[in-house]
Amino acid sequence: MTSYDLTTLGEAQIRLTAHRGGRLATSNDLRLSPAGSEANVAGLLAQLGRKTAFASTLPTSDLGQRFANEYRGVGVDLSMCVPCEGRMALYFMEPGQAPLPAKVTYDRLHTAFREITPDLFDWDRLLDTRLLFVTGISAALTENTAGVITHAVSAAHERGVKVALDVNYRSLLWSPERARQVLEPLLAKTSILFCSRLDGVKVFDLIGDGPSINSTLRERYGLDHVVSTDSTAGVYYSGIEGQEVFQVEGVTVVDRPGAGDSFVGGTLHGYLDDSVREGINYGLRTSKFALTHHGDLTHVSPAELAIPTSTDIVR
Amino acid sequence: MTSYDLTTLGEAQIRLTAHRGGRLATSNDLRLSPAGSEANVAGLLAQLGRKTAFASTLPTSDLGQRFANEYRGVGVDLSMCVPCEGRMALYFMEPGQAPLPAKVTYDRLHTAFREITPDLFDWDRLLDTRLLFVTGISAALTENTAGVITHAVSAAHERGVKVALDVNYRSLLWSPERARQVLEPLLAKTSILFCSRLDGVKVFDLIGDGPSINSTLRERYGLDHVVSTDSTAGVYYSGIEGQEVFQVEGVTVVDRPGAGDSFVGGTLHGYLDDSVREGINYGLRTSKFALTHHGDLTHVSPAELAIPTSTDIVR
Amino acid sequence: MTSYDLTTLGEAQIRLTAHRGGRLATSNDLRLSPAGSEANVAGLLAQLGRKTAFASTLPTSDLGQRFANEYRGVGVDLSMCVPCEGRMALYFMEPGQAPLPAKVTYDRLHTAFREITPDLFDWDRLLDTRLLFVTGISAALTENTAGVITHAVSAAHERGVKVALDVNYRSLLWSPERARQVLEPLLAKTSILFCSRLDGVKVFDLIGDGPSINSTLRERYGLDHVVSTDSTAGVYYSGIEGQEVFQVEGVTVVDRPGAGDSFVGGTLHGYLDDSVREGINYGLRTSKFALTHHGDLTHVSPAELAIPTSTDIVR
Amino acid sequence: MTSYDLTTLGEAQIRLTAHRGGRLATSNDLRLSPAGSEANVAGLLAQLGRKTAFASTLPTSDLGQRFANEYRGVGVDLSMCVPCEGRMALYFMEPGQAPLPAKVTYDRLHTAFREITPDLFDWDRLLDTRLLFVTGISAALTENTAGVITHAVSAAHERGVKVALDVNYRSLLWSPERARQVLEPLLAKTSILFCSRLDGVKVFDLIGDGPSINSTLRERYGLDHVVSTDSTAGVYYSGIEGQEVFQVEGVTVVDRPGAGDSFVGGTLHGYLDDSVREGINYGLRTSKFALTHHGDLTHVSPAELAIPTSTDIVR
Amino acid sequence: MTSYDLTTLGEAQIRLTAHRGGRLATSNDLRLSPAGSEANVAGLLAQLGRKTAFASTLPTSDLGQRFANEYRGVGVDLSMCVPCEGRMALYFMEPGQAPLPAKVTYDRLHTAFREITPDLFDWDRLLDTRLLFVTGISAALTENTAGVITHAVSAAHERGVKVALDVNYRSLLWSPERARQVLEPLLAKTSILFCSRLDGVKVFDLIGDGPSINSTLRERYGLDHVVSTDSTAGVYYSGIEGQEVFQVEGVTVVDRPGAGDSFVGGTLHGYLDDSVREGINYGLRTSKFALTHHGDLTHVSPAELAIPTSTDIVR
Amino acid sequence: MTSYDLTTLGEAQIRLTAHRGGRLATSNDLRLSPAGSEANVAGLLAQLGRKTAFASTLPTSDLGQRFANEYRGVGVDLSMCVPCEGRMALYFMEPGQAPLPAKVTYDRLHTAFREITPDLFDWDRLLDTRLLFVTGISAALTENTAGVITHAVSAAHERGVKVALDVNYRSLLWSPERARQVLEPLLAKTSILFCSRLDGVKVFDLIGDGPSINSTLRERYGLDHVVSTDSTAGVYYSGIEGQEVFQVEGVTVVDRPGAGDSFVGGTLHGYLDDSVREGINYGLRTSKFALTHHGDLTHVSPAELAIPTSTDIVR
Repeated sequence: MTSYDLTTLGEAQIRLTAHRGGRLATSNDLRLSPAGSEANVAGLLAQLGRKTAFASTLPTSDLGQRFANEYRGVGVDLSMCVPCEGRMALYFMEPGQAPLPAKVTYDRLHTAFREITPDLFDWDRLLDTRLLFVTGISAALTENTAGVITHAVSAAHERGVKVALDVNYRSLLWSPERARQVLEPLLAKTSILFCSRLDGVKVFDLIGDGPSINSTLRERYGLDHVVSTDSTAGVYYSGIEGQEVFQVEGVTVVDRPGAGDSFVGGTLHGYLDDSVREGINYGLRTSKFALTHHGDLTHVSPAELAIPTSTDIVR
Repeated sequence: MTSYDLTTLGEAQIRLTAHRGGRLATSNDLRLSPAGSEANVAGLLAQLGRKTAFASTLPTSDLGQRFANEYRGVGVDLSMCVPCEGRMALYFMEPGQAPLPAKVTYDRLHTAFREITPDLFDWDRLLDTRLLFVTGISAALTENTAGVITHAVSAAHERGVKVALDVNYRSLLWSPERARQVLEPLLAKTSILFCSRLDGVKVFDLIGDGPSINSTLRERYGLDHVVSTDSTAGVYYSGIEGQEVFQVEGVTVVDRPGAGDSFVGGTLHGYLDDSVREGINYGLRTSKFALTHHGDLTHVSPAELAIPTSTDIVR
Repeated sequence: MTSYDLTTLGEAQIRLTAHRGGRLATSNDLRLSPAGSEANVAGLLAQLGRKTAFASTLPTSDLGQRFANEYRGVGVDLSMCVPCEGRMALYFMEPGQAPLPAKVTYDRLHTAFREITPDLFDWDRLLDTRLLFVTGISAALTENTAGVITHAVSAAHERGVKVALDVNYRSLLWSPERARQVLEPLLAKTSILFCSRLDGVKVFDLIGDGPSINSTLRERYGLDHVVSTDSTAGVYYSGIEGQEVFQVEGVTVVDRPGAGDSFVGGTLHGYLDDSVREGINYGLRTSKFALTHHGDLTHVSPAELAIPTSTDIVR
Repeated sequence: MTSYDLTTLGEAQIRLTAHRGGRLATSNDLRLSPAGSEANVAGLLAQLGRKTAFASTLPTSDLGQRFANEYRGVGVDLSMCVPCEGRMALYFMEPGQAPLPAKVTYDRLHTAFREITPDLFDWDRLLDTRLLFVTGISAALTENTAGVITHAVSAAHERGVKVALDVNYRSLLWSPERARQVLEPLLAKTSILFCSRLDGVKVFDLIGDGPSINSTLRERYGLDHVVSTDSTAGVYYSGIEGQEVFQVEGVTVVDRPGAGDSFVGGTLHGYLDDSVREGINYGLRTSKFALTHHGDLTHVSPAELAIPTSTDIVR
Repeated sequence: MTSYDLTTLGEAQIRLTAHRGGRLATSNDLRLSPAGSEANVAGLLAQLGRKTAFASTLPTSDLGQRFANEYRGVGVDLSMCVPCEGRMALYFMEPGQAPLPAKVTYDRLHTAFREITPDLFDWDRLLDTRLLFVTGISAALTENTAGVITHAVSAAHERGVKVALDVNYRSLLWSPERARQVLEPLLAKTSILFCSRLDGVKVFDLIGDGPSINSTLRERYGLDHVVSTDSTAGVYYSGIEGQEVFQVEGVTVVDRPGAGDSFVGGTLHGYLDDSVREGINYGLRTSKFALTHHGDLTHVSPAELAIPTSTDIVR
Repeated sequence: MTSYDLTTLGEAQIRLTAHRGGRLATSNDLRLSPAGSEANVAGLLAQLGRKTAFASTLPTSDLGQRFANEYRGVGVDLSMCVPCEGRMALYFMEPGQAPLPAKVTYDRLHTAFREITPDLFDWDRLLDTRLLFVTGISAALTENTAGVITHAVSAAHERGVKVALDVNYRSLLWSPERARQVLEPLLAKTSILFCSRLDGVKVFDLIGDGPSINSTLRERYGLDHVVSTDSTAGVYYSGIEGQEVFQVEGVTVVDRPGAGDSFVGGTLHGYLDDSVREGINYGLRTSKFALTHHGDLTHVSPAELAIPTSTDIVR
């Protein structure tokens, strides 16, 4: 038996957000919340009772400590985080209010994480896990991070550790060509792929409607499972559990960042119980819950996974 | 002439609420607000110019004082509250945000109110009033409280004081059978009954649509007035003013607790002016106003009872 | 070339607002924000890169300083404000939440601005501008203010400075007859008039639908441009750029005051570039942005004028 | 037996205060708290178990309601307040922090209270009390208010109601000559006078050290009791209980306004039990407590009057 | 080698605190912070790099989760906490401000922890540690808790696990006689005892000055180390490292609760490195740091243990 | 006559500060305030009625806008700031509370300001001023910034513009040797030098007591004025106004950053009126005021320069 159910690797971040009804250009107070897609996924699964770990470099500063308190608080094992000098990756956010869009400004250059190399981590320990989760965001940062993500996936594959990959393409970080160049070789070693319809179009040059892009990805790369979100149009699944289109409902947004990670987390919760389709239902629920409270990390209890989604008071 | 227009008797409570956009499990600050169905009704009517009093046991603690400041501030006479030792009844609330439901956790066991007996109160003074208002919630707590509520209704009836009763069935507090056993004997002495369609089904074993349950209650127990809410389906009235179905409109909820009490309060405001049907219109308005601001106690002025329910700025 | 693109003259105010979810009658904290229609217009245009100035009397108090910091902060030139003794004009606001209406209570009597006379200002300097903007609100306050506004429009006309006038009729401040008596003589000297359909009916005794009232104003008074808002029904334009009806979309309101001023400001931004029709599109956008954040002064950047009005996150 | 222990008459006010560490000129939020010397005294005594009433004119606005909620909340009877139109008296405050002094800016002109006349109040009801408390502040506002205060003291004297008078000289409101002209005739009808050493010098032209000014006042006007504060130098008493100098200790100030009123209130608590000297000890304690929390009204319980003034935790 | 450096056992609590400058009786918001002496000690040592665990019963409620997030966040292992039904132990606090004392009101009756029995815990796992830390507070609650504490100390002693005991006498919880009856038998199995001078007098009937009470305890019960605080008079040590009196400096208090636990934690940090005297110096530092920020749990980094206690800015 | 009284050049920064009583490692909210020594000096003098300008590079981001709003709000001319891409210089602060020291963590690397060259600025415009103010902090950042500062001082000297230089040595930014190498050549062109006793020792290898270091600097470099702070020991002046030692009083600190800049600003206010000695008295006052409120920029009015430094309430 492995020590962990899920282990993940990515960059630690801190978000600084203007209060709703305010603008960054006139703010006197900012909300601080730790962030990071991979840590969010580990944090969600820890709350659902899974043993999870997050590996990274972590600045030995108060902000590094702030990050650690958040994710360790919900049960994520951070003992594989390597202390480092230097700055914490930041991002500033104005929540927006329609028709004024939310606005995110990254301030995440020049961090130690961008210089990581495979020898920084103890792979025997890092891969003593059932599932390795990595994202395109981490691979996109630098050649170094792309190298570590590639190494991680290969090493996991060699050891028989399953791999989950979230493409999560960001045009500010790399070109579609570079993304494909880095990510495509990983697909043969990946068990479950998250790739939105739009990322399928942009990164993998696919055309067609959502379900067909979803199933093409599955077929072309021989993956066990492919899960494709498509904004409010739905979520598409194809894989060894068949094919399905899941409906998506809109909800009022209190705070958006992290909702996608909660969808991934919920889905992987099902994956670890051998049912990605049930997992997608979990993910649809947790991603909606994610929008109801502040912070990138979604707070949810196992009992709430089964909550009927009404708004009645529970007494 | 009596000293009071309405006198009521129930338990004093304090609510502790997580801020919207937060979760109790991660809160560093809670909103504190006094609560209690019977006090809320007395508080609403005091603001509308009625002389009202609230009787209870009240802990001689800062939280007891906090409760007193709130309701006395709007004009409720608390001089019939008996000081007591021990803890204040509490309830914790997470406001929720769809699809995450609001969540209420009671922490109201082991209070002095649960041990009350009829000899605690001066009934001549307590019943020097036009109308006594009691609820099933208070009757449900213990045998002692059931005994005091029963005593109060009987003593009022003997003195010719009108009685208003709100069934307000709570499955966490008692069984439908016990509720019926305690409340049914009170109905013959009651002038105006509030019983939702669902409580009619659960507690009084009635079947049929809302209006028919409403009119059956009236007929079976010979009440002057029966008022039945039915969630968003409407409000039903049958009684000496005839029969009517009132439409209900949904509104955005800032804070839900106390809205039902505001409906009761508004209705009794009409009752005291000999028009329950006008009262129900008041109640529909005050219960909507209740949802627009924090706290169990609704703040409203007599002028606002007549406000056209538009959202235009009043200048 | 003139020193300023737009110069305006009006009263400085401070708004004190209850927090959403609270009521003034129970508030322990109020939000403070500077206000004033004319200053709002100057502040919006300053943010869009225009050279603007605001003239007034300004109390030599902390509240006067607070006002100055706000508008000077976005680039408005306040050097033509005349220091004065006495009180700052205030207004209190309860934001409301449907169905409870927003409520505004003015506390703006007995201010020095009400005693202004034309000799208080250096008209050579004040009219060293491309466009003078005045409103009916300022004209409505006292005979003195009406006299100064009349003087300002006449002096501008003599110097060949264009005049923009916003009728902005307030029934609490003057009668329709008095409004017409003061404002009608100004129209012959006005280039662009803002007059809502309702104000056309009330002040100018016009009848008919919105577009016809709008075009009648234009024809009767021989104005270059007439812009008429009509609540959610649309915005009507008639003038030397032809005629047009602009659609209006509703949005969620975080804070309403100042939205009308932002519409005027956006429209004048177009006017200064010789396209009122483009300006109206700017104004529709800035007035919607105005509703998304607190304060009478709308905060907006030139780049945001071109934002597609979706709610997607901008990364 | 009278209906009240103490009845008082003065102006209702609202204070708006910058947060500590901020400046009014840069504040976005102000703390709102009701105020009024006479109401503060009534509020303190109500908390100590006395039956007290406060008479005034009270604006029928949300701010008027806010005032009422505060003092009624601690048990003051406001039924003798006469509803009026118009504005609430305001004052703005910057708390300061040494060496920057606290700064108070009054905005209390043009209120209905300034126009009061004796026929506004029901003197039979207002003087159905053991003790009438009035201050020089109220007498100072206008000729009207001076007339009402004079009428109140005379009417009380005629009915055998004891009178307490606090000189509380404010140079911004009247001259020493005018103060003496108005207040001196009241002294023969006053039982207990509060007059600081400095006010004795300024208003009554007395010279000498504190105790001698204190005893001179007593002798010259034949008062039962004279109580004179003298900043940190002490408090002087002379009267039918003899003579005494009380020591004063400095404490950290969280919020200063109202501390003097708490001293008066505590002293009158003793007076009503026939011991002014004990009352001064109460007053020294309550005035120190006043400095520990925000608001003009001091919150204190009877039990806390007996608290040993250590800083140990009470468990 | 053991799995933990320190394991402790006690009750989980939540504190609800009025904001400084406010009073509970008028509060609308309370600060929420998890608490518990034993958890605080474990939390401090975890931050200093020790492996620590806390065992208890933990309600399966949001408040239970809130507690877990706090202590797990700084690295305490909570896997030995047994989920339970029922209420969370609470305490309310008014911070006070001299001369108004801080006030603590417990609301911790009727919790599951009061019913614990030795069979609830896995003692092999609980005692797989270098040091067991227990307090008199836990022993004081009920016969059950006294039984479990007694069992824990005995079982530790049998296994050769060192025992640290903090007397922490609370007169509200038990009598001195009962305290002595329960605690005295534990002393022979204790390696390091924390007993203040006052507790030595009250519980163990000792007389004399602080150092002599301290050394008498050591001699009478044959302990390795006895550490006695004596308010601001100093800290006394006697034991196998000799005898010493440590000076204590006063500091400004932001928030007091937990400071004593931080002293204990710092001292045990030294104990675990075989130097209690160095530990007392740590403890004096951490207990002062504890007073500088909110919450029962002191936040401190290993680097800060060595900070020169000046107030200069560290850049 | 020049267009400005004082022009300065430095880096724009934003500070993010934990709330007092909290720690960065557990903060959920940070206070945001713009910062920058040179901007602070310009901001203080603008409030005192001087025409001042601040030149820099300013990121075209919301944080850049936030900076601009702050300093433009008090009247500083920012029209010489050059828009740039990239990140805003940040610094994080924990306010500390004795004995826990305040802690500042810079995050100001990789900004556009570090790449500035002399051709970025219009020196004719920048030096159309009576006084140029520069600091060692700006010179210390990079070779580029050292070059620009050197150029600025030389160009000012050539044009006959007076130069004020604040050494402000920071060991984290450069070595004493490098500081001396860059700054020493500037002294011959400097009229007024600010150099603390410690910086005199470290950077200029001086020995002796404060006054002698102060006068040695003056003599060695032939400066008009040398002003040396020496912590709480005093401030030393030597120059064409003679020699003097000024006493310094300690005050309670609400927020420390910017106090030194306020001292410089106050002193230069006197310099511009030809009295540095009067200026030092201004500076001692403004630097104390600086500690009483949040933010690097001190808010002060001309009237407050003359305030007697008592703590009495000003009414």
